[in-house]
Amino acid sequence: MTYCVGLFLSEGLVLLADTRTNAGVDNVSTYSKTFVWERPGNRVIVLMTAGNLAVTQAAVNLIDEGLAPEDDPDAEPDTMFSVPTMFEAARLVGRAVRRVHAYDAKAMKAQDAPFAASFLLGGQLRDRTLRLFEIYAAGNFIAATPDTPFLQIGEHKYGKPILDRALSYSATRLIDGMKLALLSMDSTVRSNLSVGFPLDLVTYRRDTLKIERQVRIEESDPYVTLLSRHWSDALRTAYHDLPAPEWPTGHVHAS
Amino acid sequence: MTYCVGLFLSEGLVLLADTRTNAGVDNVSTYSKTFVWERPGNRVIVLMTAGNLAVTQAAVNLIDEGLAPEDDPDAEPDTMFSVPTMFEAARLVGRAVRRVHAYDAKAMKAQDAPFAASFLLGGQLRDRTLRLFEIYAAGNFIAATPDTPFLQIGEHKYGKPILDRALSYSATRLIDGMKLALLSMDSTVRSNLSVGFPLDLVTYRRDTLKIERQVRIEESDPYVTLLSRHWSDALRTAYHDLPAPEWPTGHVHAS
Repeated sequence: MTYCVGLFLSEGLVLLADTRTNAGVDNVSTYSKTFVWERPGNRVIVLMTAGNLAVTQAAVNLIDEGLAPEDDPDAEPDTMFSVPTMFEAARLVGRAVRRVHAYDAKAMKAQDAPFAASFLLGGQLRDRTLRLFEIYAAGNFIAATPDTPFLQIGEHKYGKPILDRALSYSATRLIDGMKLALLSMDSTVRSNLSVGFPLDLVTYRRDTLKIERQVRIEESDPYVTLLSRHWSDALRTAYHDLPAPEWPTGHVHAS
Repeated sequence: MTYCVGLFLSEGLVLLADTRTNAGVDNVSTYSKTFVWERPGNRVIVLMTAGNLAVTQAAVNLIDEGLAPEDDPDAEPDTMFSVPTMFEAARLVGRAVRRVHAYDAKAMKAQDAPFAASFLLGGQLRDRTLRLFEIYAAGNFIAATPDTPFLQIGEHKYGKPILDRALSYSATRLIDGMKLALLSMDSTVRSNLSVGFPLDLVTYRRDTLKIERQVRIEESDPYVTLLSRHWSDALRTAYHDLPAPEWPTGHVHAS
């Protein structure tokens, strides 16, 4: 399993992925699921992957090699450095996963291995708007919007409540988005053994056309340790301070 | 879907269930999934159910009618008022769900309807210890312990992080347990449409042998509205107050 979360904020993007992969609990490895294509001043494109590692690695390989459009196989192959928009970048990812599906899905199905893959793709090209997409195994995709300012792939449930309550496209600053993404990840890591450190964090500030920060975070990182402990303390204080319910004892029907 | 949570605390039990059932998003109903057998001074037994409503309703019916042991069908049927221990009460629930399985599972399977059922069973009998069990569709079961002071059935992931962080068998008082169970439910209701109000809340104070409080809570309940709003505010304040990460910008490897 995997957990990746992308925040789409007025100030920019926060993208966070774990690196754990597992095929059963006794076959656990660390793989980066984060890929960056950056040409400062021209484009920043970041991809995070979840699902079957053989599928997503094959897709990333095809993207790096370049893929011609399906309806014009003799054309110059598209790459992340040639696509003119983030929309076309998302289509390139979709085309790659469809190509992997065409090549591998039948053999996988014959052995009951599900064809599972999903992607977060965020970034910006010069003179274009900032975008964040979630791309499905079928190669189609959706975009984050100010109404829905985050997208998640993989083991998404444990880390969703904190984002539902606290995240806002316009009010959450990039620095606070980093905290929220890390708290969302921390909740997931605590609850699901198959999501684990180290983490890959990428932040991008809108219209700068270069990566603001790309950090590999180890489990021993003092900030993450502090964040997790402070957060648990803050939650305990917060719920203690909540007013107590005043429903009477006995068998009653409230309100 | 359903969400039920049971807290096993040194002061007693908090049990909370939603009441929504659905067969597709356009077939949503309200059913109580909470059943109480109480004889003050002698026993308090509370059952909460999740899964296929036809299965769990049939099981509760069989429990109410009474079931003889499988190896002695001519014996006096056991009921929740005759079982001598909570352990035997859990076995009675298990026996009931196995009986339903024997009667219905083959026909359900023929129509691809999964035989899904799970139960939380909490309570105490005179001169016996307080117990909280989770009973599976196969009729076997596990008990909550001071190390694992809560059990969940149904849509459990959204509501787990707050319990993982804040709940303690010995330190969480019953009144705070009510808040935590409601916060755990609130996170779930916000994230999953198939879990919904009204809620059924039961609290039991250890060694009292009577229900402390059984409340049906409507969505309009002023306390629940206040709790949810205060909690969102508290979380936003708490994460704002967390220290900011100090990782440098650029491409770095932290710690």
